[in-house]
Amino acid sequence: MDQDAIAQRISASFALQPAMSLIGARLERVARGSVEIHLPFAAAITQQHGFLHAGLLATALDSACGYAALTTMPADAGVMTIEFKVNLLAPGAGDWFRLLGKVRKSGRTIVFSEGEAFAVSAGGEKLIATMTATMMCIQNRGNIRN
Amino acid sequence: MDQDAIAQRISASFALQPAMSLIGARLERVARGSVEIHLPFAAAITQQHGFLHAGLLATALDSACGYAALTTMPADAGVMTIEFKVNLLAPGAGDWFRLLGKVRKSGRTIVFSEGEAFAVSAGGEKLIATMTATMMCIQNRGNIRN
Amino acid sequence: MDQDAIAQRISASFALQPAMSLIGARLERVARGSVEIHLPFAAAITQQHGFLHAGLLATALDSACGYAALTTMPADAGVMTIEFKVNLLAPGAGDWFRLLGKVRKSGRTIVFSEGEAFAVSAGGEKLIATMTATMMCIQNRGNIRN
Amino acid sequence: MDQDAIAQRISASFALQPAMSLIGARLERVARGSVEIHLPFAAAITQQHGFLHAGLLATALDSACGYAALTTMPADAGVMTIEFKVNLLAPGAGDWFRLLGKVRKSGRTIVFSEGEAFAVSAGGEKLIATMTATMMCIQNRGNIRN
Repeated sequence: MDQDAIAQRISASFALQPAMSLIGARLERVARGSVEIHLPFAAAITQQHGFLHAGLLATALDSACGYAALTTMPADAGVMTIEFKVNLLAPGAGDWFRLLGKVRKSGRTIVFSEGEAFAVSAGGEKLIATMTATMMCIQNRGNIRN
Repeated sequence: MDQDAIAQRISASFALQPAMSLIGARLERVARGSVEIHLPFAAAITQQHGFLHAGLLATALDSACGYAALTTMPADAGVMTIEFKVNLLAPGAGDWFRLLGKVRKSGRTIVFSEGEAFAVSAGGEKLIATMTATMMCIQNRGNIRN
Repeated sequence: MDQDAIAQRISASFALQPAMSLIGARLERVARGSVEIHLPFAAAITQQHGFLHAGLLATALDSACGYAALTTMPADAGVMTIEFKVNLLAPGAGDWFRLLGKVRKSGRTIVFSEGEAFAVSAGGEKLIATMTATMMCIQNRGNIRN
Repeated sequence: MDQDAIAQRISASFALQPAMSLIGARLERVARGSVEIHLPFAAAITQQHGFLHAGLLATALDSACGYAALTTMPADAGVMTIEFKVNLLAPGAGDWFRLLGKVRKSGRTIVFSEGEAFAVSAGGEKLIATMTATMMCIQNRGNIRN
């Protein structure tokens, strides 16, 4: 697929994810092997100390890592997450969050992606979390596409 | 703390988590070292294939594991997640989801919790994911309580 | 395969792992879906503080988890580790170590195993580490068997 | 500590790790926040298919990540691994292996390190595994130094 087809594929699938609109995440940039998502800070996505909930950070990172993987898969394939790990390096405080997903190794069945989350505020941006994720390429299962 | 004080502590903190009401999660059971959360299936929490989003599953599991850890911490302490890993064993399909968090090892600074997620439907319940999580006990930082 | 064939398969493969004899690990018990390995404490397998090196603990746990997975795979398949995570709960001190690997979910391509490591001494046994591991079933690649 | 003192500290501690000499690992380079270890391929460190055992790869990566963390800790501190995760991207085949550990975030109690493993052969080098690791800074426990 060329760059335009890849971007359209990811954009169309992202629009079908109610979870992304629930948390307020937006797809910002797609290239072969990488995806960027933005998530504005909002009270609705916080935990008991007023920081972004680690699980919702993971939600946006998982979508970034999963879609980065999908950009490397055949057109008839779907992506499913096998596992991910998140390391939290600083509290989720900031004006908005920048989530990057990048493919590190793309195999026929298994794709390994890495994610990074940055908190952005007037003072600049700061790394607050990382993700490592194993994604599976699903083919020939009718309902699992993109 | 006795069982009532522990249950009240977790319940009060859970109520302060906007993220839990955003995804529709409810606190169901609290005991020293274990917490159970229920999450009804809803279109709003799904991904592009119509299954529960892996990140939102992680969100409820992280709260279950974190609060299980908090039940073992001093009354003036707060809990923060250092890291978690989620393994996804089956698609998130079902009527509702049962999330269990249990403390496996409680130290002074570090608490290790394990989580399990079950999909419940008319046919019974099925293990769909596990979590392992490292939680940190925060003391003497004014704004980090519970 | 019946129990005897499974035990023989794992035993023969274990004997082909120089890494196991290097660290002094012994295969103790095999059943469908579970494997137990014993590892005597020895100065040669320690780190700078005199405890069992976390990586060597992971080595024995990885073999336990991988072989547990292999007991559920077809006779012509081989097992390869996709990923594992180890949480270390207490220092690796004791007379010997008991490593358990158990299959939690066995799929056609992916098998999910969990491992536990116990330190054994005169005073009893103590959980010192856990592993979660994703194993892959490899077929039709001539050199990857068992 | 200056660069010389850091290098000497790590080098002296590495020499006290029997596990490193058992597997044939050598400390190659130390700088504040990063450590490089080399591991020659040898039959003794392989698994049943003739590849480097994933656990022994993890052993060298854990030492690289742990010592990278130690370079950022006070002179009276010791480093202990809390957890690590390894993703295996390609079989461990090659003439030797290059293991890099780098600190990504250094806190007072917790240090987060990332590791990468490359297989080196006549044809160049290839990424075969990554590690993410949480390290703990131990102080005021007499026997845990460096």
